[in-house]
Amino acid sequence: MALKACSPEQLAGFFGTNTTNPIAAANFICEQFSAVSNKFSDTTFAVDSTYLLFSAYLVFSMQLGFAMLCAGSVRAKNTMNIMLTNVLDAATGGLFYYLFGFAFAFGAPSNGFIGRHFFALKDVPTSSFDYSYFLYQWAFAIAAAGITSGSIAERTQFVAYLIYSSFLTGFVYPVVSHWFWSADGWASPTNTDLLFGTGVIDFAGSGVVHMVGGIAGLWGAFIEGPRIGRFGHSGRSVALRGHSASLVVLGTFLLWFGWYGFNPGSFTKILNPYETGNYYGQWSAVGRTAVTTTLAGCTAALTTLFGKRILSGHWNVTDVCNGLLGGFAAITAGCSVVEPWAAIICGFVAAVVLVCCNKLAEKVKYDDPLEAAQLHGGCGAWGIIFTALFAKEDYVNQVYPGKPGRPHGLFMGGGGKLLAAHVIQILVIVGWVSATMGPLFFVLHKLKLLRISAEDEMAGMDLTRHGGFAYIYHDDDEEHKHGIQLKRIEPNGSTPTTT
Amino acid sequence: MALKACSPEQLAGFFGTNTTNPIAAANFICEQFSAVSNKFSDTTFAVDSTYLLFSAYLVFSMQLGFAMLCAGSVRAKNTMNIMLTNVLDAATGGLFYYLFGFAFAFGAPSNGFIGRHFFALKDVPTSSFDYSYFLYQWAFAIAAAGITSGSIAERTQFVAYLIYSSFLTGFVYPVVSHWFWSADGWASPTNTDLLFGTGVIDFAGSGVVHMVGGIAGLWGAFIEGPRIGRFGHSGRSVALRGHSASLVVLGTFLLWFGWYGFNPGSFTKILNPYETGNYYGQWSAVGRTAVTTTLAGCTAALTTLFGKRILSGHWNVTDVCNGLLGGFAAITAGCSVVEPWAAIICGFVAAVVLVCCNKLAEKVKYDDPLEAAQLHGGCGAWGIIFTALFAKEDYVNQVYPGKPGRPHGLFMGGGGKLLAAHVIQILVIVGWVSATMGPLFFVLHKLKLLRISAEDEMAGMDLTRHGGFAYIYHDDDEEHKHGIQLKRIEPNGSTPTTT
Amino acid sequence: MALKACSPEQLAGFFGTNTTNPIAAANFICEQFSAVSNKFSDTTFAVDSTYLLFSAYLVFSMQLGFAMLCAGSVRAKNTMNIMLTNVLDAATGGLFYYLFGFAFAFGAPSNGFIGRHFFALKDVPTSSFDYSYFLYQWAFAIAAAGITSGSIAERTQFVAYLIYSSFLTGFVYPVVSHWFWSADGWASPTNTDLLFGTGVIDFAGSGVVHMVGGIAGLWGAFIEGPRIGRFGHSGRSVALRGHSASLVVLGTFLLWFGWYGFNPGSFTKILNPYETGNYYGQWSAVGRTAVTTTLAGCTAALTTLFGKRILSGHWNVTDVCNGLLGGFAAITAGCSVVEPWAAIICGFVAAVVLVCCNKLAEKVKYDDPLEAAQLHGGCGAWGIIFTALFAKEDYVNQVYPGKPGRPHGLFMGGGGKLLAAHVIQILVIVGWVSATMGPLFFVLHKLKLLRISAEDEMAGMDLTRHGGFAYIYHDDDEEHKHGIQLKRIEPNGSTPTTT
Repeated sequence: MALKACSPEQLAGFFGTNTTNPIAAANFICEQFSAVSNKFSDTTFAVDSTYLLFSAYLVFSMQLGFAMLCAGSVRAKNTMNIMLTNVLDAATGGLFYYLFGFAFAFGAPSNGFIGRHFFALKDVPTSSFDYSYFLYQWAFAIAAAGITSGSIAERTQFVAYLIYSSFLTGFVYPVVSHWFWSADGWASPTNTDLLFGTGVIDFAGSGVVHMVGGIAGLWGAFIEGPRIGRFGHSGRSVALRGHSASLVVLGTFLLWFGWYGFNPGSFTKILNPYETGNYYGQWSAVGRTAVTTTLAGCTAALTTLFGKRILSGHWNVTDVCNGLLGGFAAITAGCSVVEPWAAIICGFVAAVVLVCCNKLAEKVKYDDPLEAAQLHGGCGAWGIIFTALFAKEDYVNQVYPGKPGRPHGLFMGGGGKLLAAHVIQILVIVGWVSATMGPLFFVLHKLKLLRISAEDEMAGMDLTRHGGFAYIYHDDDEEHKHGIQLKRIEPNGSTPTTT
Repeated sequence: MALKACSPEQLAGFFGTNTTNPIAAANFICEQFSAVSNKFSDTTFAVDSTYLLFSAYLVFSMQLGFAMLCAGSVRAKNTMNIMLTNVLDAATGGLFYYLFGFAFAFGAPSNGFIGRHFFALKDVPTSSFDYSYFLYQWAFAIAAAGITSGSIAERTQFVAYLIYSSFLTGFVYPVVSHWFWSADGWASPTNTDLLFGTGVIDFAGSGVVHMVGGIAGLWGAFIEGPRIGRFGHSGRSVALRGHSASLVVLGTFLLWFGWYGFNPGSFTKILNPYETGNYYGQWSAVGRTAVTTTLAGCTAALTTLFGKRILSGHWNVTDVCNGLLGGFAAITAGCSVVEPWAAIICGFVAAVVLVCCNKLAEKVKYDDPLEAAQLHGGCGAWGIIFTALFAKEDYVNQVYPGKPGRPHGLFMGGGGKLLAAHVIQILVIVGWVSATMGPLFFVLHKLKLLRISAEDEMAGMDLTRHGGFAYIYHDDDEEHKHGIQLKRIEPNGSTPTTT
Repeated sequence: MALKACSPEQLAGFFGTNTTNPIAAANFICEQFSAVSNKFSDTTFAVDSTYLLFSAYLVFSMQLGFAMLCAGSVRAKNTMNIMLTNVLDAATGGLFYYLFGFAFAFGAPSNGFIGRHFFALKDVPTSSFDYSYFLYQWAFAIAAAGITSGSIAERTQFVAYLIYSSFLTGFVYPVVSHWFWSADGWASPTNTDLLFGTGVIDFAGSGVVHMVGGIAGLWGAFIEGPRIGRFGHSGRSVALRGHSASLVVLGTFLLWFGWYGFNPGSFTKILNPYETGNYYGQWSAVGRTAVTTTLAGCTAALTTLFGKRILSGHWNVTDVCNGLLGGFAAITAGCSVVEPWAAIICGFVAAVVLVCCNKLAEKVKYDDPLEAAQLHGGCGAWGIIFTALFAKEDYVNQVYPGKPGRPHGLFMGGGGKLLAAHVIQILVIVGWVSATMGPLFFVLHKLKLLRISAEDEMAGMDLTRHGGFAYIYHDDDEEHKHGIQLKRIEPNGSTPTTT
C-alpha cells in the first residue's frame, strides 16, 4: 500500500530555474513523502498481522471446540481416547505441517499440483508469506484432521489414528489446499490461467477443509464398520447417545466463536481499500463475511429445531448444534461473496441436506458418531454448489480483483462456468481423498491396525488403552483402602470396583 | 480522521510568479497530501473495524458463558432445556435482529422513539454503520435475552420461550437501545437536544441491556411463580442447588472474558486521538475502561466472599461468581467515565445490593434460579445511579465530545442533572419493559402456554421434552442388552438401571 | 514512530529569494508533514494498544484455563475449593496489583530492586505506561498465583490461601518482575548497566512467572506434606487421580490459547519496523514467537506421549497435557529470540525434564497435585538455560536493540556471558522466593493456619468449608421430600440420600 511515487525531477521542473535550488527542494519534499510511504507500509504490515494472528488464535480455539464436541458426543468410556486424538491433531499437525505440509501447500513458485519450498519454514518470511500466515494455515490443517477423528470415534486403534492424522495433515490436505488456494494451484481463483475462466471460489474451505475431513472420515468409518450395538439384531438403528450434552453445547459454541477466525479471517488482510478514502473497503467485506456466517448458522439451527420437532417429537439440543455447524460448514465456501439474504438460503438448505444425509446414513448402516461425514462432507458439498449459484458480481470482483468480467453465480446472472468449476472441485476432492485415504485405511484394516477388539470396544478404550476412566465423581478414599487405583462409575449398586 | 485540507491556491501564491509553474508544483504537492489523507482514512477504518470485530467476537463468547452458567445453575434434569434456550437466543436473535431489531434500534434518520431504516441490512454499510457494527449490536441483543432465560429457568414451556425471546430481541430491547444509544434517541447523550441538558450516560448498558433483561425476567418469574419445592410447606426457603459448580465457574470466567468486549468495546472505535500526537487518546480510555471493569468485578467478588462467609459460615464459590457478575453489571453504565478508585466503590456497593435483593426475593417468595432479576436488574440499577454520582468531567467530555460544560457526576461537582436523567432512565426502562413483557407473559400464562405441568417439572424437561437426560456417565452396554435407549440416572435405589 | 523533522528553514533556503514567500511556502509544507507525523503517532498508539489489550484478554483467559485444569486434576470433593482459589487469584490479584504490585514492578524511575511510583495507578498513563500495560501485567501476576495454588491443592486452609496469594501477587512476584523486566531492574536486558554486559533475557517469564509460581508452590507443598493416601503404608506411590479428564483437556487447550497472548503478546507493541518499509519487522517476530511457542508445546506433547507409552504402557491424555504445558513453560523465556527448529529441541528436553522431575518428586515423597513445581519450576528453569544456549544474534539485537555486540546463545557462537547471567537468574529466583514464601508458609504452618484437619481432608473441603459438593447429577426431588439440602454422591451402595 505504497503512495504514488513522488518524482523529484517533475517537481523540480515545476519549481524551475528561478528557484535557488529546485533539485534540493524537490528532493527534500519527495524524501519526506517516501518516508511517509514507508510508514504506511509498516502500518499495513502491523495491522494485517494483528488481524491475521488473532484470527489464527480464533481458528485454533476451534480445536478446543472439536475436543469438547467430540468428547460430549461419545460414550463416557471413550472420552479420554477422543480427547487425546484432538490434542494430538494439533501437536502432530504442528510438527508435520511445519516440516512438510506448509511447503506442499504454499511453496511457491511451483507447479499446479504441489508446492516445493519453505520446508521447515526455510526462507520464511518473504514479502508474501510471514510466520503469521503459516500459523493461520496450520490451524486450518488441524481442523481437517479433527473432523476425521469424529467419524471413526469409539472403535479405532490409537496407532491407526496417529498414522492417518500425520498423513492427512502432512500431505493429503496440503495438496488440496495448494490446488485451490495457492496462486500456482491449477484450480485457484488467482491463477494466471483460470480454470474455465473462473477458477474455484472456495473462500474459506467448504471443500478444501470440510469435505476433505468429511470424505476421509467417510472412508475410515465405512471400512471399520459401525460400532457394536449401533444397529440392532433386526437392523434397527440404535442411538448410542453421547455422555454429556453440556460438552456438546460447549464445543458447538467454541466452534461458532472460532468460525469468526475461520471465515472472516480468510481474507488474511483487512487494511485493503477497494477505493482509497471510501468507507467501504475490505474491512466491510470482512464484517459482511462475519454476518453471512452468523446468518447461515442461525437459520440452519432454527430449521433443524423445527424439522426435528416434526420428525422426532421433541426439541433436541444436540441436533440443533449439529444443524448449526452444518450451516457454518456450508457458508464457508461463499461467505465473502454472497449477500446476507443468500446466507439464509444457504443455512436453510444445509439443514435439510444434513437431515437427508443422516437418513441415508441410517439406511445404509453407516455409523459416524459425530455425523462428521454427513455434516462436513454433505453440507460442505452443498456450500460449494451454493457459492456457484449465489456469488455476487461486485463481491467476486472485490475479493478476487484484477480480472474484470470473470464469471459469478448462476442465479445472479453470472453464467454456468463457476458452477462447472465447482462441480469439478467436488469430484476432484472426492477422488483425491478417496484415492489416498481410502487405501490407507484399507491397508491399516488388512494389517489389523485399524479397529480395536470387540472386548476393548465393550469395555471402552479409556480403561483398556488410556489408563482409566475419564471421570471419578465420588470420593476415592474407598479405593485406597482396597488398593485399587482405577475405577469405573458403575450404574448399579454392586461392587465390581471394590472387591 | 482526515488531514487539514491542503490548498494549492494558497501554496501557489507562496511560490509566486517567479516559479516556473507554481500551480503545477502546488497541485503536485497537495495531491500527495490528499493521497496521504485518504490513506489515513483507510487505515482508520481498518484499525477501528479490527477493534470492533474482535470486540464483537468477545461479546458473542458471553453467550457461551451464559449457557454454561445457566446449565451449571439448574438441576441436571433441565440442563438440555436451558442450554437449548441459550443456543436459540443467539440463533433467533440473529434472524430477528437482522430483519427488524437493528432497524428499530439504529435506523437513522428517524424519531426519538424508534428507528426505521436498515431492515434486513438494506443500505448497510453507510459511512456511520458498517456490518461490524451490526454484528456488535446483535451480540448485545442476544445477551439481554440470555439474562431473561435465567429467571424463568426450569419451569417454562419451550414455546413460550421462543415467543418471548423473539419479541425481546426483535422489538423490546431494540427500542430501548434506540432511546439511549442512537443519536436520534430522546435520552441519548449525543442527541442535539439533550434531556436535562445531559442525556443519559449508559455507556455499555447497565440499563439498556442488564436492566431490560432483568426486568423482563422479573415479570416472567413473578407470573409463573416459584419452582415446586423452592419454598417449603412452612414457607421456608429451600435452595435448589445447581448441578455443576464447574460449569458455573466456567461460565463466569467466560462472561468475565467477554465483558472486555462488552465494556471497552462499546467505544466501537479506538483510533481516535483526543489531541493529535499525544500519548493519551481514546486507546487510553479503552484501557482505563478495561481496568475499571476489572476492579469493580474483583471488589464485588471479594465483598461477596467475606459477606457470605459472615452470613452463611462458608466460603461459597457460586455466590462469589454471582457477586463478581453483579459488579460487572453495575460498572457497565459508567465504566468509561469514572476513575479506577470509583470502580472499587461501585463493586463494593453492587455486592451489597445483590445480597439485599436476594434477601428481599426470599422474603417475597420470588424464585429466580439464576438470580438474574436481582443481579442484572438490581445491580444494573445501582450502576446507573453510580454513574450519575461519580462520572468525571474530563472523561465525560472526552467520551461525549462537542458539548463543553455538560453535567457530570454529583459527587464530582457536576450537579444533579445527570442524576435526574438517570432516575428517569430507570423509571422508563422499568415502565417500558413492564408494559410490554408483563402483558406478554400474562397472556401466555392465561393461554396455558407459559408454565409446564407439575409432572413435567418433577420429571425434568430434558426427559419429557428434549429427548433424554443430558448425561450418561456409566457404560451403556447394559441398555443394549435390555433395549433401553434413553435412560436416567436414578437417585433412588430402584432398579431400572441395575436389574 | 515520528517522521524525520521537516525543517522549514532548510526548505525555504532551497526555494530561495526569487520565490514570493519562501518561508510561508516552507512552513505550509512542513506543517502538513508535522500533522502527518502526529497522525502516525496516533495510529501507532491505537494499533499497539489494540494488540496489547487483546493479548491481555488472552492471558486473562489462562486463568479460566488454570481453573479448569486444576478442577479436573483434583478429586471431586475439592473442586469448589480449588476453583474458588482460581477466581480469587484474579480478584485479590486485581486489587493488590492495582494498589501495590504494579508500582513495585514498574514504578520508574526507581532503583534496581523495587519500583516506587504508580501506586493505585497514580500518574498513569504516561508516555511509557498506559492502562493497557497495567492490565497486561496484572494478567501475568495472577498467573503466578494460579500456578502456586495447584501445588498445595486439596489440603490447604482457605485463609492460608488468601494470605499467600495476596503476598505473592502484591509483593514477591512484582519485585522479581522489576529485576528482570523494568528498565531499572538490576538484571534487566534494557538497563543502561547490563549484568555481565548482557542482562537476563527472560522474554515472557519462564523465570519471572513460572519459576516464581513453581518455587512458591514447592515450599507450600513441602511444608504441608503430601495428601493423605498419596504415599501408601509401605511408601508406595498411589496416584490420586483427578475427577475429570474433560476438564483437564479443556483447561489445557485454554492455556494453549492464552499462551498466544502470553508469549507473542510480551512484545507489547507490534507496529515497530526493524527497517522502515521492509516486510520483515516486529510483526514478523511476533508471528515467529507464536510459531516457536507452538512447536515447543507440540514437540513436548509428542515426546511425552511416546515416553509415557514406554514407561507406563498406555497412551495417557493428562500426561500429554502436562507435557504440552511443560513445553510452553520452557519456551516462554526464549520464544522471541530462537529459531523454530530450536524450539523443537526446547520442547523435547522439556518433556524429559518433566518426567525426571516427576520421578524425583515420587522418590522424595513430594506431593504436588498439579505437578506445578515440577512443570513450572523444572521446565521453567530449563527454558532459562535453553535461551542462554540457543538465542540467535540477529533476533537478540532486534528484540533488545541499541546495544550492538551484546552476547547471545552459547551454541550460536555468542559466548558464555548470557549463560552466566541466566544461572544467576535461576539462583536468585530460587533464593528470593524461598526467602519470602518459605518463611510465610512456615509461619502459617506453625500457627496451624496452613493445613486442614485429617477429617476435613477425608470428607473433602467442599462439604466442610464451601457449602456442599460441586456436582448433583441426579434428580433432587427426593431431597425436598426429606428436607435434605446438601447431598453427596456416595460411592458405595448405601443410601443416605434415599432413606
